[in-house]
Amino acid sequence: MLPRGRPRALGAAALLLLLFLIGFFLFGGDLDYGRPQPRGAAALDGDLPAGYGGHNSSDCDPPRPRPRPPKCELLQVAIVCAGHNSSRDIITLVKSMLFYRKNPLHLHLVTDAVARNILETLFHTWMVPAVWVSFYNADEPQPQVSWIPNKHYSGLYGLMKLVLPGVLPPDLVRVIVLDTDVTFASNIAELWALFAYFSDKQVIGLVENQSDWYFGNLWRNHRPWPALGRGFNTGVILLRLDRLRQAGWEQMWKMTATRELLTLPATSLADQDIFNAVIKEHPWLVQPLPCVWNVQLSDHTLAERCYSEASDLKVIHWNSPKKLRVKNKHVESFRNLYLTFLEYDGNLLRRELFGCPCPLPPGAEQLQRALAQLDEEDACFEFRQQQLTVHRVHITFLPHKPPPSQPHDVTLVAQLSMDRLQMLEALCRHWPGPMSLALYLTDAEAQQFLRFVETSAVLSARQDVAYHVVYREGPFYPINQLRNVALAQALTPYVFLSDIDFLPAYSLYNYLRASIEQLELDGGRKAALVVPAFETLHYRFSFPTSKAELLALLDAGSLHTFRYHEWPRGHAPTDYARWREAQEPYRVQWAADYEPYVVVPRDCPRYDSRFVGFGWNKVAHIMELDAQEYELLVLPEAFIIHLPHAPSLDISRFRSSPTYRDCLQALKDEFHQDLSRSYGAAALKYLTALQQPRGPI
Amino acid sequence: MLPRGRPRALGAAALLLLLFLIGFFLFGGDLDYGRPQPRGAAALDGDLPAGYGGHNSSDCDPPRPRPRPPKCELLQVAIVCAGHNSSRDIITLVKSMLFYRKNPLHLHLVTDAVARNILETLFHTWMVPAVWVSFYNADEPQPQVSWIPNKHYSGLYGLMKLVLPGVLPPDLVRVIVLDTDVTFASNIAELWALFAYFSDKQVIGLVENQSDWYFGNLWRNHRPWPALGRGFNTGVILLRLDRLRQAGWEQMWKMTATRELLTLPATSLADQDIFNAVIKEHPWLVQPLPCVWNVQLSDHTLAERCYSEASDLKVIHWNSPKKLRVKNKHVESFRNLYLTFLEYDGNLLRRELFGCPCPLPPGAEQLQRALAQLDEEDACFEFRQQQLTVHRVHITFLPHKPPPSQPHDVTLVAQLSMDRLQMLEALCRHWPGPMSLALYLTDAEAQQFLRFVETSAVLSARQDVAYHVVYREGPFYPINQLRNVALAQALTPYVFLSDIDFLPAYSLYNYLRASIEQLELDGGRKAALVVPAFETLHYRFSFPTSKAELLALLDAGSLHTFRYHEWPRGHAPTDYARWREAQEPYRVQWAADYEPYVVVPRDCPRYDSRFVGFGWNKVAHIMELDAQEYELLVLPEAFIIHLPHAPSLDISRFRSSPTYRDCLQALKDEFHQDLSRSYGAAALKYLTALQQPRGPI
Repeated sequence: MLPRGRPRALGAAALLLLLFLIGFFLFGGDLDYGRPQPRGAAALDGDLPAGYGGHNSSDCDPPRPRPRPPKCELLQVAIVCAGHNSSRDIITLVKSMLFYRKNPLHLHLVTDAVARNILETLFHTWMVPAVWVSFYNADEPQPQVSWIPNKHYSGLYGLMKLVLPGVLPPDLVRVIVLDTDVTFASNIAELWALFAYFSDKQVIGLVENQSDWYFGNLWRNHRPWPALGRGFNTGVILLRLDRLRQAGWEQMWKMTATRELLTLPATSLADQDIFNAVIKEHPWLVQPLPCVWNVQLSDHTLAERCYSEASDLKVIHWNSPKKLRVKNKHVESFRNLYLTFLEYDGNLLRRELFGCPCPLPPGAEQLQRALAQLDEEDACFEFRQQQLTVHRVHITFLPHKPPPSQPHDVTLVAQLSMDRLQMLEALCRHWPGPMSLALYLTDAEAQQFLRFVETSAVLSARQDVAYHVVYREGPFYPINQLRNVALAQALTPYVFLSDIDFLPAYSLYNYLRASIEQLELDGGRKAALVVPAFETLHYRFSFPTSKAELLALLDAGSLHTFRYHEWPRGHAPTDYARWREAQEPYRVQWAADYEPYVVVPRDCPRYDSRFVGFGWNKVAHIMELDAQEYELLVLPEAFIIHLPHAPSLDISRFRSSPTYRDCLQALKDEFHQDLSRSYGAAALKYLTALQQPRGPI
Repeated sequence: MLPRGRPRALGAAALLLLLFLIGFFLFGGDLDYGRPQPRGAAALDGDLPAGYGGHNSSDCDPPRPRPRPPKCELLQVAIVCAGHNSSRDIITLVKSMLFYRKNPLHLHLVTDAVARNILETLFHTWMVPAVWVSFYNADEPQPQVSWIPNKHYSGLYGLMKLVLPGVLPPDLVRVIVLDTDVTFASNIAELWALFAYFSDKQVIGLVENQSDWYFGNLWRNHRPWPALGRGFNTGVILLRLDRLRQAGWEQMWKMTATRELLTLPATSLADQDIFNAVIKEHPWLVQPLPCVWNVQLSDHTLAERCYSEASDLKVIHWNSPKKLRVKNKHVESFRNLYLTFLEYDGNLLRRELFGCPCPLPPGAEQLQRALAQLDEEDACFEFRQQQLTVHRVHITFLPHKPPPSQPHDVTLVAQLSMDRLQMLEALCRHWPGPMSLALYLTDAEAQQFLRFVETSAVLSARQDVAYHVVYREGPFYPINQLRNVALAQALTPYVFLSDIDFLPAYSLYNYLRASIEQLELDGGRKAALVVPAFETLHYRFSFPTSKAELLALLDAGSLHTFRYHEWPRGHAPTDYARWREAQEPYRVQWAADYEPYVVVPRDCPRYDSRFVGFGWNKVAHIMELDAQEYELLVLPEAFIIHLPHAPSLDISRFRSSPTYRDCLQALKDEFHQDLSRSYGAAALKYLTALQQPRGPI
């Protein structure tokens, strides 16, 4: 056994002494930016007793031990977010925060309707343990700031941070306020712990501004708002809401802003100008924070003085309008940190907090129970697991303008993954109407997709195409879940349920709208309009501009009816012979394995999400339409053409794996049982059809 | 200005007092595992003065401040690694370590030849700043441990940690030794800082074993090696190499092992049994480390006692032979952490360390200069940037057995990305010989690829297919860099330079070897054997088993000569009419745009890596072969057939973007200038060819 008592006590004493000495040297140093600073600016460093600059203290203070991040304490975070692009930004911020956090978090999101719609769906499907999200309508407090002229790119929402004490719940005492363009590189609890340093009077914790902006000498006639020394940056704020309310914050900032606006035309840096003006007037309000908690990468940043001496960066702030394209000799390294979280698989953040008792997010408990009931030895285990998977969904990933409401309008609905991106431009050329597309992507692929759209003139010109990202998880392509996401987001009264490999006739969009009107579908007639499908086997071919041209190509053997060689049953009931001659829509009867592409009202039945991977996914949907007595009406002038592609991984697995085929059969059987339960004797015909023997697909 | 002096001093004093009090309470508690422990086990906790268990101390010690991770100090890490699978594991470990590190690192890798080959290439191409790598041949010290009978799955290499003091450089004083199956969740400098706690006698820092193994009561007749209490786990070790050498470590462990092996048949846990037996005998050697530095996820782990009380996990250790499939109620969360680094884009770790002056890794400086010279305004900037990109390369990503050396053997060389994985099985069926394939993947995709091979009976049966992962970076598919990687790794005297979308005639492999022998290519005849290329436009078709069958399909219009419709120039010089009738190989002449698939000696010219994305990548190579006076000999019985697929993203960009086409033209011009420089007047004919006007591709 070790004789440890003495050396340990001695060691501890020696270390303590060392610590005092280190403190003596370090707190004696003054590493400021060579300018006079407000007294006490960055007097703490939250992590280290040395090294990142900004100390200003008497020589013999002992080093103050850093406050411990509180285990299991709920931390409060507020973020203002509006529009499609900020909704993407905030997710990267949240991912970085969640990656390092060890505490439960409550996010307070002050949003416009667009961001709320996106983020509600996202957090609901993300199901991260120990994260609560509350939304606040940013439109309500708008009048409180809309009178302030503002030149900053963040616009009106940039000013919203001023009104948080009134917007957030009255019992919320402390909150960390973040801009959407910050990235965490450390545990947010360390930031939260800095509240402990606030004196009784202090209400706002801020990091000093890391540029010379507020000195007003950046260019001729540059006239900034008043600030204490270099001023403070408001990308990261600690707010004592209780004290702000008590101190009459609202009157305070409004008075200051009103006064300054007598001589200044507008704010240049939104809320930050006003915060600084107030602090200049009431300097005791502010607790300066260590520079590492807001490393500002603006164009002429002085941040290097901070991060090259600190051993650790805590938060980086992309506070240039150029964001990641900002010029800075270290930007590559910062960008790598940012890209880490931009491309990080958000599913991996569904980690529980060990040792903190936290209720599971809504739905997660149910899901866990269902997953736990699955039999891992079942040959179809992976299928069943995939069916239960709740995919993270980011609706309207890119800016989107809903189409004006029109009674016969129709949205093209489809789904795709990365390997079909190159279809999008052609699809846009063929379909001038609204589209709702679900994309099955990883977080990294979502960024590639974003770049793809940005560099395409055709795609970026379209605002009526809504792209919904469904994040990948599990071994099978969840085709029907994807279709349901796209379908749920369609905003017109009708939808055209298509697939991504098809190009519609150029006239189809107009023709469908006209047909819907003519057939008086809005009068309550329950019908599914069938769009006949064809295919070409050539990569390059010139698309027929009319039915006559199409028929000529068909006769010449350059075109075929869809899957004519492999699986004619899928479209035989469309009756192509009759279609050749037809002048009017005609009714056809359902038959086994029929899987046409149809136009239906938006409130049609959803796809059955048990079908994942290859097989039976559309067949089951058409069966359900038939069971609900939708008329099947073939349109005489409508057509779509399928372009060639390599067989998908799923179809290859279906062909090579007997288990895959057996599992699909089991799913079909279960589907039929459910159909019988829902539709009774009327569903008998589907059972008969299902039991017919047939060749391989 | 703030009146800060007094409140600050008071606050500091209060905090210090608080800290003392906390220490008083916490160090009084005893949170051990309910079993007698070696005195001093986990007496430190490296991060927190409280909360995760294993304290054992008198009541009135003050809390010891944690030692500070030393800024910019070079940290030394040793890892033993052998074979293909461990080489993959170690990369995940290294990624996790690099992600959190802030210090320069020196990795000491003790490897077999396979691992060295893989890891040398990997680190050379990874070019991470402030990381040095040294290799040590594991075969040399093997005799020192090979006499020890060992039942552990880690085999002989598992014992190698015992001999590190002799293997590592004599001037290396301290080193952290890691198993390949650990994952970091924190900064390794914090672990390094624990060396400061070693007493003068202590030489080994270890975390207590987190199972009851060494108590010997896990099952009947379980007879473990002797250990101090619960014993220690050797997945994470701090070694004072200097003191070990001085103390005669080699004699020490050999004597103990020899003695124990008189009564015990073999080690069950490899080196760990011997370390524990030595420590039992000389307990003053060990400095116990906090449990969070080696959270052991074995089958019946007791680790939860550690991690549910700690606020922070530092290192997790997958020390079950089941690895990630281990059963454990929190395994999902640990797996997410592991997957984070498994799938992490290693390119993002090329981050410099701010404030630590470090020379750039070999090649990186040159590369930075070249990149800095590029003109960002140049329309072809992205092309030039892509050409300069050094891709991280992981050769022989999966287990591979080089083919036995045969004088006429030929390796099929090709490259692919995820969207062509489904070609691999068919390719294996058509080509029974060795293959060298470069795969262009992200880190996450590489894992999908691994699963794909593991679940394919056809692919996992093949050990002669070498898969080389080239990690994705940049907007263009670096086709010729990929080809060069695959080509460089081919181990037979000849290579068949093919493309992934082609299936060879079933007989091709044997026929090529026979032809090489017959044509006496090994006698120094400089020839490129042309394999005529055909194409089908149908997804499913029955592959011709002979030339006669092929010709019949050609006549029936089911097959065509390759790119007959789009770009006949590419293969016209092969002279298909002559091929129909040919019985013997025949010579053909080079012509502009000729790009046949050829068999050449392994030392043939490399592909020109300036061609990225679509266009001219093969043409340039054939031109170079011709310039070097390779005879072009068409083989009368050889053929390959191209299967249909959707156009690649690159060909779509080429077609839609005039800039893309202009840049390709600029590259061609530059290529020709280089050709002229190398081959003088002889290269004139290529210039003439280049300047001929021609239609769109």
